[in-house]
Amino acid sequence: MAIVLGPNRYGKAETRLVRVHRDGETHGLVDLNVSVALSGDLTATHLTGDNSGVLPTDTMKNTVYAFARKHGVGEPEAFALLLARHFVATQPQVHGAKVSIESFGWERLGPHSFRRRGDHTRTTVVTVTEEATQVVSGVAGLVLLNSTDSEFHGFVQDEFTTLPPATDRILATAVDARWRHRDDGADWAKSFEGALDALVGAFVGTYSYSLQQTLYAMGSRLLEDRPEVAEVRLALPNKHHYLADLSPFGLDNPNEVFIAGDRPYGLIEGSVTRDDAPPATAGWWL
Amino acid sequence: MAIVLGPNRYGKAETRLVRVHRDGETHGLVDLNVSVALSGDLTATHLTGDNSGVLPTDTMKNTVYAFARKHGVGEPEAFALLLARHFVATQPQVHGAKVSIESFGWERLGPHSFRRRGDHTRTTVVTVTEEATQVVSGVAGLVLLNSTDSEFHGFVQDEFTTLPPATDRILATAVDARWRHRDDGADWAKSFEGALDALVGAFVGTYSYSLQQTLYAMGSRLLEDRPEVAEVRLALPNKHHYLADLSPFGLDNPNEVFIAGDRPYGLIEGSVTRDDAPPATAGWWL
Amino acid sequence: MAIVLGPNRYGKAETRLVRVHRDGETHGLVDLNVSVALSGDLTATHLTGDNSGVLPTDTMKNTVYAFARKHGVGEPEAFALLLARHFVATQPQVHGAKVSIESFGWERLGPHSFRRRGDHTRTTVVTVTEEATQVVSGVAGLVLLNSTDSEFHGFVQDEFTTLPPATDRILATAVDARWRHRDDGADWAKSFEGALDALVGAFVGTYSYSLQQTLYAMGSRLLEDRPEVAEVRLALPNKHHYLADLSPFGLDNPNEVFIAGDRPYGLIEGSVTRDDAPPATAGWWL
Amino acid sequence: MAIVLGPNRYGKAETRLVRVHRDGETHGLVDLNVSVALSGDLTATHLTGDNSGVLPTDTMKNTVYAFARKHGVGEPEAFALLLARHFVATQPQVHGAKVSIESFGWERLGPHSFRRRGDHTRTTVVTVTEEATQVVSGVAGLVLLNSTDSEFHGFVQDEFTTLPPATDRILATAVDARWRHRDDGADWAKSFEGALDALVGAFVGTYSYSLQQTLYAMGSRLLEDRPEVAEVRLALPNKHHYLADLSPFGLDNPNEVFIAGDRPYGLIEGSVTRDDAPPATAGWWL
Repeated sequence: MAIVLGPNRYGKAETRLVRVHRDGETHGLVDLNVSVALSGDLTATHLTGDNSGVLPTDTMKNTVYAFARKHGVGEPEAFALLLARHFVATQPQVHGAKVSIESFGWERLGPHSFRRRGDHTRTTVVTVTEEATQVVSGVAGLVLLNSTDSEFHGFVQDEFTTLPPATDRILATAVDARWRHRDDGADWAKSFEGALDALVGAFVGTYSYSLQQTLYAMGSRLLEDRPEVAEVRLALPNKHHYLADLSPFGLDNPNEVFIAGDRPYGLIEGSVTRDDAPPATAGWWL
Repeated sequence: MAIVLGPNRYGKAETRLVRVHRDGETHGLVDLNVSVALSGDLTATHLTGDNSGVLPTDTMKNTVYAFARKHGVGEPEAFALLLARHFVATQPQVHGAKVSIESFGWERLGPHSFRRRGDHTRTTVVTVTEEATQVVSGVAGLVLLNSTDSEFHGFVQDEFTTLPPATDRILATAVDARWRHRDDGADWAKSFEGALDALVGAFVGTYSYSLQQTLYAMGSRLLEDRPEVAEVRLALPNKHHYLADLSPFGLDNPNEVFIAGDRPYGLIEGSVTRDDAPPATAGWWL
Repeated sequence: MAIVLGPNRYGKAETRLVRVHRDGETHGLVDLNVSVALSGDLTATHLTGDNSGVLPTDTMKNTVYAFARKHGVGEPEAFALLLARHFVATQPQVHGAKVSIESFGWERLGPHSFRRRGDHTRTTVVTVTEEATQVVSGVAGLVLLNSTDSEFHGFVQDEFTTLPPATDRILATAVDARWRHRDDGADWAKSFEGALDALVGAFVGTYSYSLQQTLYAMGSRLLEDRPEVAEVRLALPNKHHYLADLSPFGLDNPNEVFIAGDRPYGLIEGSVTRDDAPPATAGWWL
Repeated sequence: MAIVLGPNRYGKAETRLVRVHRDGETHGLVDLNVSVALSGDLTATHLTGDNSGVLPTDTMKNTVYAFARKHGVGEPEAFALLLARHFVATQPQVHGAKVSIESFGWERLGPHSFRRRGDHTRTTVVTVTEEATQVVSGVAGLVLLNSTDSEFHGFVQDEFTTLPPATDRILATAVDARWRHRDDGADWAKSFEGALDALVGAFVGTYSYSLQQTLYAMGSRLLEDRPEVAEVRLALPNKHHYLADLSPFGLDNPNEVFIAGDRPYGLIEGSVTRDDAPPATAGWWL
């Protein structure tokens, strides 16, 4: 029996980059949180502290800022690809690079004035190895609510079941969705907008008998609308809204007054894929 | 020398209320976080645990939900006034009631579908005593950024000053503003929209030599635009964006690539008032 | 009617300082979050952007680090006094300085090894003007729980009251306490330890009929034990633990299984003072 | 090409359970955050909203509270095994159950009085299927710091490298560690205490040339000390402490005054295993 080093990686997390594109009077603004993780032959530093194969994480941070100047920053998928390929191409001991980006949206108020949107974060996870490139796009923190057209009944009853069936309830969730692209050649901006529309449209348009049904509708709509996407994964918390019991006060409550709960919450996780989807070449959920 | 009870109050904080107004097919949605604090003759419970003058905080929570059904929920200022007046009017031992409300905005997606906005929270603090009523409205978490038209120089230099003067910098802040109304009779919806427009418009339109100057511009614009407002208080963190030094990489950086800092941050706090403003009748900042 | 500038101040918030005191082999560790706010004659910068009276907030940050080297960092009250006095003494346009410090505790593991405690944060707010000096010490995030010896009944019943009386409940809170010193000459370390012991001891030792009663016991115990303290203010959230209703499953629940609630929560705020306490010379709660 | 449902699961997350064990005068306290996720034949609810195979997440919550009463709550691994086995055994359509528990520690202050510790959270992830049982224990939020005995040099230099070599620096991290047990029969309390001691002891005792080296030392120490453990995974953020540059003020800084940084941070992730470790039967990191 021997103790051995298993899978490992390292990098710089959460480099906060704001890039102003000054095109005359009118400025563009890109606001990113960039995380880099590299893997490769890192046994020496783990076993003996020999750092001759370790590119400092500080250098990864510097590279993010330098690339933002040299190449500009367009769509996050493209910027992540550029960074990931750089590390694999220039560092012989690096076999794989994962670049994750959170993009924060800003609404334009004037030629050089902006207001930060808070309705969702756009996410990207790009993984590049010598053999394969994988691009995952996503959205987090998108909170959606239907105030009707949601039921939940016909479920399993066991000795611990007390939930009454619901024929009209609020359905609300904070969408955490990620979708894997078939290849690295999509029109990232158009693809993201289309994917977001598909998710929102399916949530709004689905008369729901379970959050699972809504999840599947969202995932399959995205695949129907976006041929460049191979697979979708969704994690949907069921943000419970409990009907307030007003009967002690002589009041009815015809689905109008709700207690918004924090914890616990349901959590529905699922993936929707194509039967001809190419396999994933890297972990991509996190 | 004797030990004595000083000022005190108690209440229920953060009652999370979602109110659906079902008006045929089209639903309205109000999403609030309501906190109630009562003061009055509470010596007995502090000194001996005699609770005969204590309305349970659980009852305050129940009242929020019951009132939402009985009276509906319109503008948060109006709902807060209704609740605060109820406690003072019905509980003889209660001399003052403070009701604070956070309102979360939702964008309509369909007749009964909504997407949560995250760009700001609307706030209200209403204080009612037997003698006076005070209404404070506000906004929190509104993040604004100008990518130019901001300078900072001509400041004091002491032995610990190393900051270089800036003639072109990013100015960004997360607005926390509160404004006190002259009385309790405003058109709350219109007043809030106008106040928000004033704050945003002044931020965008001010060529700034200091965040203090921008703060004063925002407060005075609000007072100019909204005669129903007596006084404005602003707390503006200076969300620093540091110019990345790219010279080690042979790159210039003409105000294009910035490091978004977390901590420390400047914090500018100030009030703008009218020389004929009626005095505040209660603490209102928190 | 004219629009005028009201009270204002500015400063650098959340300067994160870690100070290692190297005393041979054995190191000491101080971990602080320091916020500085200055007030004085700041009209010019607000009205015209003339910064000739503005010491940059960047300089305040530099001063924190430089003082940590020059003077070392002992008790947070002493370090805050040193900083606040410096700004008032050296900047003629500065009339008042407020220095707030959060201190994070570390447990020693070895001569130069430490583990961060997370059971409370020690706080300090020092305000210095040309006329007066005020020192407030405090504690935040100290979570205490009694699993019995707490009752709550005999309270007011109105039409919205449904809470049943409780003769045995969990009482839990996250203590946020601040106490104002008579002067600036206390033994800060000893005073803080004694104050913390008083608060904890009174919470543990009080058979409670209301959280208000416990609050008063905590405040008065602190004043009894610490003659150097003039006044105590406490904000105690009532961290509700709801008895789980297990009767649908044929189970009783003799105060053994509880649901720990997040929101809403009771919030009890009160002060305990001495009838001969000198008046506060500055706001100190926040 | 067809769109198909991929892997999925659902459950109730973050059920907050506080269990008082009343053993005469002296009470015991267990404070848990329990999350349950079930997988199995769930196609119908996703495709048609047919819930005949769906045990409500509300029932999972009820089961947590009911089991806490019926069986008591001992070590979290044992409680998680009990719950996970229950769902697989009693629900024919459920093929797998994952129960994750966060345990919050409390320090005893008296027979029925407690103070919450905040120095770490103990974690457990148990996965039960019809074929296999896997138990993972862990710790999160354990913040450790060595104020010396850490170097970092000899690293790769590329065109973006500006980091100077360090021969004496602060090494600090917030340990997130998880370790997989060989089987489900360990003495959980003793095993956890021993694992925690191993992690802390290795951090303190390692003269470090890289955080990777410290990570490996921590993982291998745990495996050496705990034969019941098959594999360890660690995610160690490098909580950077930057030496303050005090030279503009005529001051040296012999590793005494540090700026504690928030973002970005290094992130070192790695696993340490045995060459004869049985394979993992389920994902366990999250």
